Amino acid sequence: MTLQKILIGDQWRDANHAKTFQADNPATKEALPDEYPVSTWDDCDAALNVAVSAAVAMRALSGDRVASFLEAYADQIEQRKDALVEMANAETALPKAPRLADVELPRTTNQLRQAATAARDGSWTMPTIDTASGIRSCYGLIGPVCVFGPNNFPFAFNSISGGDFAAAIAAGNPVIAKANSSHPGTTRIFAEAARAAAQATEMPAGTVQLIYRTSHEDGERLVADSRTGATGYTGSRSAGLKLKAAADAAGKPIYLELSSVNPVVILPGTLEERGDELAGEFTTSCLMGVGQFCTNPGLVVLLKGDSSDKFVAAVTEKFSAAPVGTLLSKGVESSLGENLAALRQVGAELLTGDTDGGGTGYCRANTLLRASGSQFLSNPEGFQTEAFGNSSLIVIADDVDQACEIADSLEGNLTGCIYSDTGGDDDAAYDKIAPHLRARVGRLLNDKMPTGVAVSPAMNHGGPYPATGHPGFTAVGIPASLIRFAMLQCYDNVRPHRLPAGLQDANPSGKTWRVIDGSWSQADVGG
Amino acid sequence: MTLQKILIGDQWRDANHAKTFQADNPATKEALPDEYPVSTWDDCDAALNVAVSAAVAMRALSGDRVASFLEAYADQIEQRKDALVEMANAETALPKAPRLADVELPRTTNQLRQAATAARDGSWTMPTIDTASGIRSCYGLIGPVCVFGPNNFPFAFNSISGGDFAAAIAAGNPVIAKANSSHPGTTRIFAEAARAAAQATEMPAGTVQLIYRTSHEDGERLVADSRTGATGYTGSRSAGLKLKAAADAAGKPIYLELSSVNPVVILPGTLEERGDELAGEFTTSCLMGVGQFCTNPGLVVLLKGDSSDKFVAAVTEKFSAAPVGTLLSKGVESSLGENLAALRQVGAELLTGDTDGGGTGYCRANTLLRASGSQFLSNPEGFQTEAFGNSSLIVIADDVDQACEIADSLEGNLTGCIYSDTGGDDDAAYDKIAPHLRARVGRLLNDKMPTGVAVSPAMNHGGPYPATGHPGFTAVGIPASLIRFAMLQCYDNVRPHRLPAGLQDANPSGKTWRVIDGSWSQADVGG
Repeated sequence: MTLQKILIGDQWRDANHAKTFQADNPATKEALPDEYPVSTWDDCDAALNVAVSAAVAMRALSGDRVASFLEAYADQIEQRKDALVEMANAETALPKAPRLADVELPRTTNQLRQAATAARDGSWTMPTIDTASGIRSCYGLIGPVCVFGPNNFPFAFNSISGGDFAAAIAAGNPVIAKANSSHPGTTRIFAEAARAAAQATEMPAGTVQLIYRTSHEDGERLVADSRTGATGYTGSRSAGLKLKAAADAAGKPIYLELSSVNPVVILPGTLEERGDELAGEFTTSCLMGVGQFCTNPGLVVLLKGDSSDKFVAAVTEKFSAAPVGTLLSKGVESSLGENLAALRQVGAELLTGDTDGGGTGYCRANTLLRASGSQFLSNPEGFQTEAFGNSSLIVIADDVDQACEIADSLEGNLTGCIYSDTGGDDDAAYDKIAPHLRARVGRLLNDKMPTGVAVSPAMNHGGPYPATGHPGFTAVGIPASLIRFAMLQCYDNVRPHRLPAGLQDANPSGKTWRVIDGSWSQADVGG
Repeated sequence: MTLQKILIGDQWRDANHAKTFQADNPATKEALPDEYPVSTWDDCDAALNVAVSAAVAMRALSGDRVASFLEAYADQIEQRKDALVEMANAETALPKAPRLADVELPRTTNQLRQAATAARDGSWTMPTIDTASGIRSCYGLIGPVCVFGPNNFPFAFNSISGGDFAAAIAAGNPVIAKANSSHPGTTRIFAEAARAAAQATEMPAGTVQLIYRTSHEDGERLVADSRTGATGYTGSRSAGLKLKAAADAAGKPIYLELSSVNPVVILPGTLEERGDELAGEFTTSCLMGVGQFCTNPGLVVLLKGDSSDKFVAAVTEKFSAAPVGTLLSKGVESSLGENLAALRQVGAELLTGDTDGGGTGYCRANTLLRASGSQFLSNPEGFQTEAFGNSSLIVIADDVDQACEIADSLEGNLTGCIYSDTGGDDDAAYDKIAPHLRARVGRLLNDKMPTGVAVSPAMNHGGPYPATGHPGFTAVGIPASLIRFAMLQCYDNVRPHRLPAGLQDANPSGKTWRVIDGSWSQADVGG
């Protein structure tokens, strides 16, 4: 058994640790061979000190330099593709193909390359030039960014390779990555790739650093430290809220993705039109990745009636018949059981599932629950318990007005969907419900399940609290996601040669979009 | 003595109150005749309920409708100009002219009209259209906005007429204004103007509501209420931090402007060049408005040397000779005394001032303090005590390196200035200090005092904590300030006719700037 080293500055070094941990293989429930340190504060302190120097050095770098690093990193990742897929499969039980090798890894390198393009282009900084007043502003680096990644995307949301990482680096900041404890080996391979890329592109030492794990207290101290610029966190609501409280008290921006039940409203007309098809579509979306997506449809709202009953029966059958997948960890398995018990405790009726096992390794039967609209409204908090995994709750509303009330009682969510028919029978209901749902979700969908999260400049992977910590920001989509890790920097009467390149008269890349005297333009000032 | 009514919905009505208060005239220290209610929670609750309905109605309004209201309101304000100036002068002792009538009132109506233009134009929503994926997004209203205004700008930052108000309304939100207790009468006149404009332009009842005062507990409950969308606050750090804690715990965005000492670094070359002139410039900036500006230069950093000594002597003389102005309130007078005492307690040397009175009404002598760089670095927190009013602290650093250390030890500030000579002697020092100061301030100035805050699209009236609560946002500058009161709203596969106007294929105004497939454009999609 090897005790792994942490990455501080550009060196792998022994951690200061009091404890160690091992990941296990969710399919076999057996511990994996490597041992990882639980760092003490000394390691966090060392990483922060190096990161502060790195931030000073990075302030002087062009977007082009940062882009070169991100592209070299994507190449290094591809060179390690087999090792990454092998390790991630062992640590998460996610299928090697297509999921890890053909979907998530290409998505990850694609994100890094899109971030590189954004860094090189510079339009994300929104340079704003007011020639009359002599005032110019743009977004610029915020300082060392701490990233805490989730368990469910070992590549695409990994703290050292995922969306938050790519955005933080592209915005010009050094990153201190805190590995997710369920896939430290995958994270270590990424760190090797990042270190190789950073050295090849001569990035400042400390551009990328890695700590595997800390105590909760040290995590809270890290996000609130005066040397920290901002934090990105994706994970459980309870751990996230502790970090948020610590960061908020210190006035440090923290972007959190905490929980979401992703309500899907399916109106009667569309069920009449293609109920069977929708039962299949919903089942696939809900059980994909064993339901372990942040945008998993965990709450379905139907209107009372025959077509809804038929839909429920069809989905129940499909849930029972579908194979039971392996969950990411023992923790996910036990939380799923506890949260389903909580939902049944408040009165949700079991349609199928909620039994132990039924598959390989950590698992629980595909579970479907049902409640009435009145039940839901009698305890909206209880019925919104997120049962992360292969489960969903169907709520049967008495009518459209009650469905609106249900929408109003929802917490903030990442997504909300409404399915309506093509003939217009559902239009009046749509028009009533949509504004209520709109106010509660970051992304509103029509006739489509929420599980796909395209890396589009128009994507919003965000939403009102507690889906995230602030409804104005997205964690997916480039260049918008970069803004989270930037501060607004204004220059008033600053002498021209002292301005950052993006604010000087000449367009720095020849194609950077800037607001010059109220108009967006790729031209030079006065050009 | 008349007990004033509060504005709930579109009606003036009796408050639910346990207590009342009166403002006083700072120049005479005598109570003004009107009596105002301290509302109980019932009034906040009523305002929130109406505001929720108003937000639903406002979601359906075009930017043009909102713009018409803002413009009508600016007109109504101008019709009440004499009454506003009279009342504000009585409540704040700020000069009727030029300050109130010729500077602050025109600035206020100008802000409202700029906000109207932004609402009509729609570019502030940053419509982003990705035709390939069928995903479109833009910013949209966040819901009822609570605004708490400061004491120092009875017009331009008033909770019912100032920058936060204009931004929140232009972004499509109803506003619940909490009057500043030092100028309730001024606020009441604005509310009458706003009500008249709202009725004339047929805005939903509750678009603008006014409560004069609440308990601290009810204020905290208000910003954290589930019906609240976001809050804007400008005022004292202690009160602001309590509101921030309450809003943060509830996951509600709150934008705060808390405190700032606005460091000014004056390098030796420029003192050699025009030290006398700078002594005048600094004195004017520091004593303007009796020093009661958020961007008042409260901390000056000089390098040890003859030119600095001469500058200090000249400023000391000017401070002693300048007339002593009337402060905004008894509270400002007593805080100023306490904070100057705190600065002297940690070791600042008194150069002039710090005596009671010397002017009319509430006042304190123009005060200049001095400390060495080492003193400052031995207790940065103590020496950064903000003494809001007609005072400043001069710190004499041993050398450039120590000046950099001082910059690094600063809390977040709204502004930071560096004066350097025209011949190049100061350039090396500038290059060393600027990156350190840049990281600590929202607006970096060259060769210019910070007290002017132009309403420019490139302005950043913001900065790292504790200057504000988040360094990515500005409170002044249109359209950027609107984004604070908006949420990011994504539409995925939403049927074209259901999209908000700004995201439909046709450009809604013919000139709205939108990002279509990566390029900013005023064209129609496909056009």
